[in-house]
Amino acid sequence: MTDTDKIFLTQALTEARHGFDQGGVPVGAVMVRSGQIVARGRNKRVQENDPVMHGETDCLRNAGLMEDYNDTEMYTTLSPCMMCTGAILHFGIKRVVIGENINFPGNIELLLDFGVKVALADDPACKNLMAQFIRKYPELWFEDIAGRSHT
Amino acid sequence: MTDTDKIFLTQALTEARHGFDQGGVPVGAVMVRSGQIVARGRNKRVQENDPVMHGETDCLRNAGLMEDYNDTEMYTTLSPCMMCTGAILHFGIKRVVIGENINFPGNIELLLDFGVKVALADDPACKNLMAQFIRKYPELWFEDIAGRSHT
Repeated sequence: MTDTDKIFLTQALTEARHGFDQGGVPVGAVMVRSGQIVARGRNKRVQENDPVMHGETDCLRNAGLMEDYNDTEMYTTLSPCMMCTGAILHFGIKRVVIGENINFPGNIELLLDFGVKVALADDPACKNLMAQFIRKYPELWFEDIAGRSHT
Repeated sequence: MTDTDKIFLTQALTEARHGFDQGGVPVGAVMVRSGQIVARGRNKRVQENDPVMHGETDCLRNAGLMEDYNDTEMYTTLSPCMMCTGAILHFGIKRVVIGENINFPGNIELLLDFGVKVALADDPACKNLMAQFIRKYPELWFEDIAGRSHT
């Protein structure tokens, strides 16, 4: 975790907070290339009735069609679920910076197994926002991630 | 592969053919529950400029918000990429029927490792449609799947 990482993770957290304010699952993400944010995303299960739009997949969608993902990094507030892990691997994102893995373990080991660099921030603000949401909307949390077959 | 499987796989192929006619990557999918199609999808990289919408993810999106995926089956014309494999695992789809894995190997072993039932049709019509597309649009095929880091 560098100071630059903290800046981009804060941007992902901003996306998550917007999601929370919209009544959505508060997971946010930004994709970075050459020190610049190229796309932002947030979980839109509630906002768009779309179970496939998690923070990372929404971010990849918003990045549009890219020839390659060389030198791209994904910043996400929560350790990625199996779908988003698969997406990160499929597109060949080189490095993932994760806000926290306490509220949801995600698939850090699988990312590492496939050679993705991972930095885990264990960020109090990310943890607090997610915990607040889980307390407030346990059913929504269960449907979106917690109750799915594989983390 | 049962006779019923062949009927549903033909429906997935119909989605793929529609995609081909639209100039898109011709991969189609249907999701089945209790012997009924509950959602249809096709790769929409070209049609919606969306790299995340493969046949399976589009199908999951079109299925909308479901409490659970018990007894669901996914029929797809092509062996699933890592993103779609992750999605199948995340949502807990119980069985996947795959049209072919010749034009793209996909991740059948990973699905099996996680306890998903897999049936491989090795269907000539699925293979021919995909091969026709790859010959016609090799760059598009490379960008969508073939050139990605992990199959």
